[in-house]
Amino acid sequence: MVTQTLKRTLLGQPIANERAHEERLTKTLALAVFSSDVMSSVAYATEEILIVLVLAGAGALNLSLPIALAIVTLLGILTVSYRQVIAAYPTGGGAYIVASDNFGSKLGLVAGSSLLVDYVLTVSVSIASGVAAITSAIPSLYEYRIILGAVFILLIMLANLRGIRDSGKIFAVPTYSFILGMALMIGFGFFRHFTGYAFVGSGKITHTALEPLSAFLILRAFSSGCVALTGTEAISNGVPAFRKPEYKNAKITLTLMSIVMGSTFFGITELARFYHIVPNPAETVLSQLARGIFGTGAVYFYVQATTALILVVAANTSFADFPRVSSLMARDGFMPRQLMNRGNRLAFSNGIILLAFFSILLIVLFNGDTTRLIPLYAIGVFISFTLSQSGMVKHWYKEHGKGWVKKAIINGTGALTTFTVLMVIAITKFVHGAWIVILVTPILITIFLTIKRHYKSIADQLSLVNLRPPKPAHNWVLMCIGGVHRGTLQALRYAKMISNNGDVNVIYVNTRSEEPTDILQKWDKYGFSSPLEVIKSPYRDVIGPIIARVKQIHNEHPDDFITIVVPEFVCKKWWQQLLHNQTAFILKTRLMFWPNVIITSVPYQLS
Amino acid sequence: MVTQTLKRTLLGQPIANERAHEERLTKTLALAVFSSDVMSSVAYATEEILIVLVLAGAGALNLSLPIALAIVTLLGILTVSYRQVIAAYPTGGGAYIVASDNFGSKLGLVAGSSLLVDYVLTVSVSIASGVAAITSAIPSLYEYRIILGAVFILLIMLANLRGIRDSGKIFAVPTYSFILGMALMIGFGFFRHFTGYAFVGSGKITHTALEPLSAFLILRAFSSGCVALTGTEAISNGVPAFRKPEYKNAKITLTLMSIVMGSTFFGITELARFYHIVPNPAETVLSQLARGIFGTGAVYFYVQATTALILVVAANTSFADFPRVSSLMARDGFMPRQLMNRGNRLAFSNGIILLAFFSILLIVLFNGDTTRLIPLYAIGVFISFTLSQSGMVKHWYKEHGKGWVKKAIINGTGALTTFTVLMVIAITKFVHGAWIVILVTPILITIFLTIKRHYKSIADQLSLVNLRPPKPAHNWVLMCIGGVHRGTLQALRYAKMISNNGDVNVIYVNTRSEEPTDILQKWDKYGFSSPLEVIKSPYRDVIGPIIARVKQIHNEHPDDFITIVVPEFVCKKWWQQLLHNQTAFILKTRLMFWPNVIITSVPYQLS
Repeated sequence: MVTQTLKRTLLGQPIANERAHEERLTKTLALAVFSSDVMSSVAYATEEILIVLVLAGAGALNLSLPIALAIVTLLGILTVSYRQVIAAYPTGGGAYIVASDNFGSKLGLVAGSSLLVDYVLTVSVSIASGVAAITSAIPSLYEYRIILGAVFILLIMLANLRGIRDSGKIFAVPTYSFILGMALMIGFGFFRHFTGYAFVGSGKITHTALEPLSAFLILRAFSSGCVALTGTEAISNGVPAFRKPEYKNAKITLTLMSIVMGSTFFGITELARFYHIVPNPAETVLSQLARGIFGTGAVYFYVQATTALILVVAANTSFADFPRVSSLMARDGFMPRQLMNRGNRLAFSNGIILLAFFSILLIVLFNGDTTRLIPLYAIGVFISFTLSQSGMVKHWYKEHGKGWVKKAIINGTGALTTFTVLMVIAITKFVHGAWIVILVTPILITIFLTIKRHYKSIADQLSLVNLRPPKPAHNWVLMCIGGVHRGTLQALRYAKMISNNGDVNVIYVNTRSEEPTDILQKWDKYGFSSPLEVIKSPYRDVIGPIIARVKQIHNEHPDDFITIVVPEFVCKKWWQQLLHNQTAFILKTRLMFWPNVIITSVPYQLS
Repeated sequence: MVTQTLKRTLLGQPIANERAHEERLTKTLALAVFSSDVMSSVAYATEEILIVLVLAGAGALNLSLPIALAIVTLLGILTVSYRQVIAAYPTGGGAYIVASDNFGSKLGLVAGSSLLVDYVLTVSVSIASGVAAITSAIPSLYEYRIILGAVFILLIMLANLRGIRDSGKIFAVPTYSFILGMALMIGFGFFRHFTGYAFVGSGKITHTALEPLSAFLILRAFSSGCVALTGTEAISNGVPAFRKPEYKNAKITLTLMSIVMGSTFFGITELARFYHIVPNPAETVLSQLARGIFGTGAVYFYVQATTALILVVAANTSFADFPRVSSLMARDGFMPRQLMNRGNRLAFSNGIILLAFFSILLIVLFNGDTTRLIPLYAIGVFISFTLSQSGMVKHWYKEHGKGWVKKAIINGTGALTTFTVLMVIAITKFVHGAWIVILVTPILITIFLTIKRHYKSIADQLSLVNLRPPKPAHNWVLMCIGGVHRGTLQALRYAKMISNNGDVNVIYVNTRSEEPTDILQKWDKYGFSSPLEVIKSPYRDVIGPIIARVKQIHNEHPDDFITIVVPEFVCKKWWQQLLHNQTAFILKTRLMFWPNVIITSVPYQLS
């Protein structure tokens, strides 16, 4: 009952099925919930571009302008494409649904597993980067970054277990505060730059280039910057969470989100170029900019705090989508059924907990380092972008509706572009970690197919088609005792009750050398005149003789039930339970593959 | 079945009860089994004395002669005393039995817990020191010392799980090889010394004393040397393992053991004094001696190898005694009953495994360092020495047999001497680690008493005294289904069979908003015309409504049985089981404190 109270306090009162539709998001709340992922990536995308470019010397940093322009263009293409996805699939589901629908379940699984991997990485990367924003401002917290990350993830998990509308409220403030902070910084930063202001960042300028400025290096920088686009698809997965009319509200929100995101990303990248910011492992690019533009005062700390907050909150997009996609995949039999269960606050509790587990695992494995996680990140998203967009081309072709050619061209352009980017990322980032995702995806797909095969085989075996009427059967009741006491007699009473004719075969396995006269005498007095059979076990094995007896009855009467009744003590405290033998459990494990054999433990409560 | 085969291969065929008496030890084997502990301590006892003495400068090392003489005298007193213990308690049990018998269970527990702690330390110290002998000869293995130690302990555990006579054979060769090596070294070493040979050991002589030569320091050195005596009591605990006449053979073996041990210890200490050996953390005193006397050749490696071997083997004394003492304490209700079970090779398997676990834990916690473990070591033994000897005084007094005064005086001298030594050790070693044992002992005693109280309370509750005849009762059978399939029908067939009148209350908990028409239609067709009750659960809780129903029936009919039948899938592979809900388990956990409520899962085997 204590656990029940704790659960209520942390998660709130249960919510009934009927209220499911109330739990919908307004556009303002939806923008907060779904945009935190894509918005927050401005906190590290520019930096990841510069980290690659600086390898060719400080002069190469100017190339951030064309790279940023390319990424913003890509964002535009994606936005137009995804508006069409939302319109065509108003029930949501995104890449997994679109790919399954149009290319069948195999490619659907490729999209699904890419999405799942990506949601886990969104959480890990955002949290690692959010913690980095904090440790840039307060360096003494650096050594606690892994624990900090884990705590943040657990807090977001809790918020999501409470249910989605509540989480919308929780996350609206940080998202809008961050957007305000960025707007201030970009506005003031541009103004001061064009009025002649300059400062020196904390990053060291090395005049010697480590690598020549090659096309490959530029593409690698571009690939790094593409992490800015992860999360663009979030809204298309979450259409049903919008208020009615769902798909219209979702489209408007998507366009709004892309405009805000695109201008912020471009603004920050330009600021970094204007002020000649060089990446520094000890301080983020954003922190250098804010410190230089505003000085280390209240506004600087506001920017750092809201950056950290939105990054922590960004993880929330995944907490909205991972459980939804995995519940869809569970519905199709590719993931464990438990992922379909809504908790009593209407959230898919198991998916939420699973996501928290894996993202904390990644934080620990990668030591909470954003830059080491980034190469794993974008590849999954671009796989699902490509599958989703090319699926849409097929969709329009199949539908052959009004204006289908135009629509197919739009999504075709999207598919071609994202596929090209996917190849660029896979090649330029392969050795840096993209191989992990390329390795994990087929493993995941194998697991999903194995699960599906299992459920299918079970459904076949359980099917009632061609059911033969059962033969009349008997219930043989065995009971094994270790002594004669109230627990034994309680079990005997029950055993006699469930036996068809009151007959119970009571067995005492004697591991001693001598006759168990003490047991026999007590049984004569208290055993309700049931006979007691003593089986000698010279090798002191208690379980073996019972199993032998069960096998013997089963072979003689294969259609009959055999029930083994085992008296069991129930102690008040868990450690007390360790002081008793676990016969019922061992019997159950040993006999579980024997048909028609039932092990029943009759509890006897001790105070 | 694979696990069964593996078990047979590692542990050998089962041994029947009738063969228990065959598994007895001849004197030659017994000397090997029981003396390895006390014999092996010569490998570190001299060194531990010198480590303390050298604090007062190299000149103080000569004091090892009087200290060694004192310890040998102590050994003589103990031997005479323990011969009387063996004669008086031919069934074995040592300090725990003697103290319980004569001073009651409280002091018996003090002795018992001291013994148990000591057996664990015997294993840890011997293994740590055996590994040190190996790393003295092969320094590159030093960094693997903890893993090496753990592997050795696991091997000894295995040997002991095979049964005691087999282990006697395994351990006879190392013990006698070590005694031979020591005899050679002492003989040759004395001869060369008196014929004028000298060499310089690897230990550095520091001419500046770190501490003044005080009486306290000398007593501390003496305390360190007393570790040589741990294991003297081993034979008195293990009398029943001897061939008949047990107590006579045991007495002879004890005397033999003390003579061999005493002369070896004295010989080595004198050798170290003759050759001015100074302790060196990187090389044991024994290694310095053997290298100096024989040169670094075959004989040197023979000495090192047999030293390592006997130290590893020494741990075996504890593996013979710890399980025996803990089975005695379990018999008396102070430890979990499972410690009384003999495995199918006649060994007390659980005690053996427990000892291995704790000794490996100590090796890990103390980083495999002998000198850090030593201060914890002797104190437990001397507590049990004192209790055992003073118990014997009371024993003779109570018995008042022929020559009891003489016998009482012998044991009284033993008690007085060991008590004095106990105080010396407790005081001089307190800060170095003795406090840990002084702290742990009362904690252990509290645990033992708590376990005893639990068993006593259960025996009272289960007692058949004043048993009232049970009221005639009914068996209410509930069944909860999640769908209609072969598994459900199998469970329904069973449920009808165990119900007194064939009535089964079948419940479907509906977590959806709409009516479960699919389920109802199927049930109409296949449900053996049992009515199906649908309970609406708007908060999607499946367990709650079932529990509410059980509580309702229980309150109306508190004396009746209520059986909840739950269909359960049995999958071939463990991971498949994870893909299904665990309703039976959850129900069992939630209802286990309700009297007369039985949860029965009816397995349905899937291929």
